[in-house]
Amino acid sequence: MSATVPVPVARLAVVGAGLVGGSVALAARDAGVPDVRLTDASAGVRDRARDLALATTVPDTLAATVAEAEVVVVAVPPSAVADVVAAVADAAPPEAVITDVAGLKAGVVADSVARLAAAGRDPGRYVGGHPMAGSERSGPEAADARLFQGATWILTPTDRTADAALGRASALVAALGGRVLVLPPARHDALVTTVSHLPQLVASTLADVAADELADAGDALLAVIGPGFRDTTRIAASDATLWTEVVAANAPAIAAALGTFAGRLEALRAAVAAGDLGAVRALLERAGRARRRMVPKADLDDVVDLVVPLLDRPGALAAATGALGEAGVNVEDLAMRHATHADRGALIVRVRAGSRARAVAALAAAGHTVVEEDAS
Amino acid sequence: MSATVPVPVARLAVVGAGLVGGSVALAARDAGVPDVRLTDASAGVRDRARDLALATTVPDTLAATVAEAEVVVVAVPPSAVADVVAAVADAAPPEAVITDVAGLKAGVVADSVARLAAAGRDPGRYVGGHPMAGSERSGPEAADARLFQGATWILTPTDRTADAALGRASALVAALGGRVLVLPPARHDALVTTVSHLPQLVASTLADVAADELADAGDALLAVIGPGFRDTTRIAASDATLWTEVVAANAPAIAAALGTFAGRLEALRAAVAAGDLGAVRALLERAGRARRRMVPKADLDDVVDLVVPLLDRPGALAAATGALGEAGVNVEDLAMRHATHADRGALIVRVRAGSRARAVAALAAAGHTVVEEDAS
Repeated sequence: MSATVPVPVARLAVVGAGLVGGSVALAARDAGVPDVRLTDASAGVRDRARDLALATTVPDTLAATVAEAEVVVVAVPPSAVADVVAAVADAAPPEAVITDVAGLKAGVVADSVARLAAAGRDPGRYVGGHPMAGSERSGPEAADARLFQGATWILTPTDRTADAALGRASALVAALGGRVLVLPPARHDALVTTVSHLPQLVASTLADVAADELADAGDALLAVIGPGFRDTTRIAASDATLWTEVVAANAPAIAAALGTFAGRLEALRAAVAAGDLGAVRALLERAGRARRRMVPKADLDDVVDLVVPLLDRPGALAAATGALGEAGVNVEDLAMRHATHADRGALIVRVRAGSRARAVAALAAAGHTVVEEDAS
Repeated sequence: MSATVPVPVARLAVVGAGLVGGSVALAARDAGVPDVRLTDASAGVRDRARDLALATTVPDTLAATVAEAEVVVVAVPPSAVADVVAAVADAAPPEAVITDVAGLKAGVVADSVARLAAAGRDPGRYVGGHPMAGSERSGPEAADARLFQGATWILTPTDRTADAALGRASALVAALGGRVLVLPPARHDALVTTVSHLPQLVASTLADVAADELADAGDALLAVIGPGFRDTTRIAASDATLWTEVVAANAPAIAAALGTFAGRLEALRAAVAAGDLGAVRALLERAGRARRRMVPKADLDDVVDLVVPLLDRPGALAAATGALGEAGVNVEDLAMRHATHADRGALIVRVRAGSRARAVAALAAAGHTVVEEDAS
């Protein structure tokens, strides 16, 4: 058993030195890839990437970056991917595999394949990709060699993609610490629409409706807002410019998802209005099972939420979690609940039911009063 | 300046010894009310209330409980409130003020007033109430003398309510540590429908739609689920029986709210389908402002989220929060993000922008790598 993982790529090129591109380069260096070249359209970004030593070299030109590459990762904004893929195909060795990291795949993949075919290049050498690495800050300073450790990295081959290209891209992802999931481009986009774009617009609409209800209200009324509303609308505070761009890029799928969702709500409204409580209960039970299946860590049958009133000051949180750590209690989840109009808040600590007694005792010994509540 | 708060009530009766009733009794004892009587329809619950010393006495009968009361708090399930209010009016002194704690007010208040009027009792002595004290466990064991400290307690007088009754109920709430908010019953119900019932059904429907999208998927696909979806659907895992009862009790208002919400989504769908990005951006900006106003603590202009990869084991959390506490950094909010298919998770720590550098330094000194991300 050797500790050395075979390096599947000896010469990697990365185009675009933002968070994802910079992290790909750093992770590749860590994985032992001997030649990692990184470039960016911006001279300033290239300088920062050099200062940060994100790659073995940071050439000024795309041509110098990809000239000897075995694999090229195109990590540029979605609207620029097809152009850059075509430029890479012109400058890289003919056998080099090309992949990208855009968050929507169907359009990017179709455009890239069309550009390659139109230029007389083999579209089979390109495979789309999307690392599921969160909504982190952009810029080379945010690059993290561990960004992809344990993260899912979706690859979206078409029937034109060469097996060798998919295999090589998969090997690179694995070397960077990611887990490959292969999906058709359209299926990828449908999933992302449902679990990311739709929740964003639903949360925003919910906050908007509530704002109308509270429009004539003084601050006192805000006290009626509880943790359920806070959770459900948290992402309504997301960046409006970013999300307008997402909607523009995925408008047909988002419109369809909104239509489906509005139809479900209308059916639920009809059931409620008709007093069909069986239908309401069936939905609630089905949704509860689905939520628990989709987020297995939050299995609510086996956990309990402990509410620990806290003073909203440095040290109170540490004292409570420190007591749990010393008692050997694993915290499954936690959140803070703030009193809206007072300094007093509470820490909500989720523990396994089997750890409940130990957790309560440890918190009590540390001087905390604990109120147990349903994990709901 | 005396440390002693004048006690507005000398003889308090509480009917129903669950979490809320038991907490009212305990808090009243703490506030110095000399005679606090508590009863419950269940002999077993009365025994537990006695063992827990929740009140000065725990009589077996309602009559003995309320015989000399100045104020009576009816803390029974919503469907039983009107019956119990009428029975209290038969047994209590004619000047005793009666209030309740049901989570929906219009129906309960109308029924209670009608029962009092039909029995020839003065409806002016009754005022509806709703302490906003969270979704805690039920039962006398969950009673907490501090449950209402800083909590909003809504009182819902009608034009038939005597000023003296509202004044006396308000004084009791203040003595228990609560903040009185006076609202008409229908306005209370509209607010609760918007900020509690509607989000529950929206979150459940969202989880249900996503379950369909993921129905044919293996566990690998669950890795596409990010923190936005997790937040937005968290309450979909709530208790289905409880929420079916809520829907039954508030069906007309919930149906109307669902209809309004579905209409808003349909309008948004039309804007997206028509490429009206100005309308989409306007919604996103309006909703973002509303969310920030409604949840002032989460003012995202001034905070930053730090992502701290953690091992999912006892002690890791304590070490990270302990480092922040020692550095004097106040944690504005925090949450755990679990890798879906790995033990590896991350702690998301929200700090004021002014504390960012200190927080990162403290975490780094404790051996943690920090990835900064947008608080969105």
